[in-house]
Amino acid sequence: MMILGVDGGGTSCRAALATAQSQIIGRAKAGSANIRTDLNGACESIMVAVGQAFAAAGQDPAHIPDTPVVLGLAGANIGTYAAELRARLPFRRCLIESDVLIALEGAIGAGDGAIGILGTGSHYLARQSGEIRRLGGWGFLLGDQGSGARIGRDLLEEALLAHDGIAPHTSLLDAVLAAHGNDPQAIVEFTKSAQPRDFGTFAPMVFDYLERGDPAADKIVERAVSAVEASLDALALANATPRCLLGGLATLVGPRLPPKHRERLVPPLQDALGGAVSMAARLFGLERSLSDGKQGLMQP
Amino acid sequence: MMILGVDGGGTSCRAALATAQSQIIGRAKAGSANIRTDLNGACESIMVAVGQAFAAAGQDPAHIPDTPVVLGLAGANIGTYAAELRARLPFRRCLIESDVLIALEGAIGAGDGAIGILGTGSHYLARQSGEIRRLGGWGFLLGDQGSGARIGRDLLEEALLAHDGIAPHTSLLDAVLAAHGNDPQAIVEFTKSAQPRDFGTFAPMVFDYLERGDPAADKIVERAVSAVEASLDALALANATPRCLLGGLATLVGPRLPPKHRERLVPPLQDALGGAVSMAARLFGLERSLSDGKQGLMQP
Repeated sequence: MMILGVDGGGTSCRAALATAQSQIIGRAKAGSANIRTDLNGACESIMVAVGQAFAAAGQDPAHIPDTPVVLGLAGANIGTYAAELRARLPFRRCLIESDVLIALEGAIGAGDGAIGILGTGSHYLARQSGEIRRLGGWGFLLGDQGSGARIGRDLLEEALLAHDGIAPHTSLLDAVLAAHGNDPQAIVEFTKSAQPRDFGTFAPMVFDYLERGDPAADKIVERAVSAVEASLDALALANATPRCLLGGLATLVGPRLPPKHRERLVPPLQDALGGAVSMAARLFGLERSLSDGKQGLMQP
Repeated sequence: MMILGVDGGGTSCRAALATAQSQIIGRAKAGSANIRTDLNGACESIMVAVGQAFAAAGQDPAHIPDTPVVLGLAGANIGTYAAELRARLPFRRCLIESDVLIALEGAIGAGDGAIGILGTGSHYLARQSGEIRRLGGWGFLLGDQGSGARIGRDLLEEALLAHDGIAPHTSLLDAVLAAHGNDPQAIVEFTKSAQPRDFGTFAPMVFDYLERGDPAADKIVERAVSAVEASLDALALANATPRCLLGGLATLVGPRLPPKHRERLVPPLQDALGGAVSMAARLFGLERSLSDGKQGLMQP
């Protein structure tokens, strides 16, 4: 018996075919699988990736409908997107979860634990005694206080305050102003078309200046780190529960957290695709020993 | 001799015809005059308003080209918009200034003073010893920390933090969450199409709950008031220089400023249109006594 794991989002869709013991025997990658904006395209990307994973493993694609699959897809926790997708897919045993949940499974395994994904956005997921709690991820305009986009936004705000003589000038802020011709209007114009990831491109610069002792960088990073701390606090984790930071800012923020969280940080066991495979193995590979309640999850 | 004042922006364009002693004898209002996005439309709105002001005063429109005018127009301080507009207008003596400068002239007259315009956005203008200093007005995403839009944004951020268990719940935040069906995603969706003025519609609610002692309202207003204080500080006004707050938040923020600014607050002498008229009287009505240097301002 084989199992499938799929990890899909707005950028790409990856699939892995594995043995029932989670040993991956074929991998593939296809285009974006955004179930919120393009359900047909997402369906196609998923099936392309799955077909290529079968081919990479030298397996007969006739077995695809019979292969149990866990799909982790961005947006799967919102509205009816997951149900609509499931109706179009050929799999007889199929579980569709959010991409964040398979990232959690990949990072900390099947037990209790929490992840903080600190990338362009920032969000958190915890599992304790089988109960899932999610927070953050509302976008940098109103949230994502521990994200690269928010750090970039904070930097531009601070630069404008320095320009106006309201905040003190620092090397970092002067560099940002100089990069925009010392014209505040140029900064404002940038933001009119900038996407969150464009704001996020400033984050490495902030951490770079932090190393050199820049006070504005210190203020901005301190605010982001405090926000990550507050979010982890709000998950109300048991003291011993492992927590894992993922995303581009993970290694920058982690060492700056207070000991209560820093000392509980663990490296991820595997990535989100590995998490989907492990979850499939856990749910479908051992299905004979599962209770009826758990089988309800599978939505055949 | 008569003089003209015009106050134009994205919403409407007002004109006033006055005697050389600034006594208004005819008023009119026309459509928007946004010189940044629609120069032809702005030109038309200005001439409609001016023509109707002449008609309201019972004056012959043949005198329009000979009547000196000060136009205060949003965006006139940016780029070449003002120069392009001037080339299309029929006036022989015409000064085009930003709408903020005529608001300053209206509020505090021709002498030293400062205004803080606290509306959907927030910006500041000071004149000291004839020198103009402007700050703020960069938009609520990166600035406008004393504005209605920023207060609305801050409120929504705080509501999401309360939903996630990161900030304490208060009556205000619960009311905001309830108004969105206790669904954070509904708040995020709102922001995708919301304009700054839509964010600003939350400001009265924040001040309403402040009166009832709501801690979240207190935090949000305290932050806005501190920002206004910091901006006034940055203008580096002489101790005795009068300062005047304008816009929808003026009467809400003013009493909460520290004494150094609160005790120097003055009510506006007149509105921006009156400021344009006064400036026209000052520059053109008395032109025989003006120095050559000042005449250079008139750009005939």
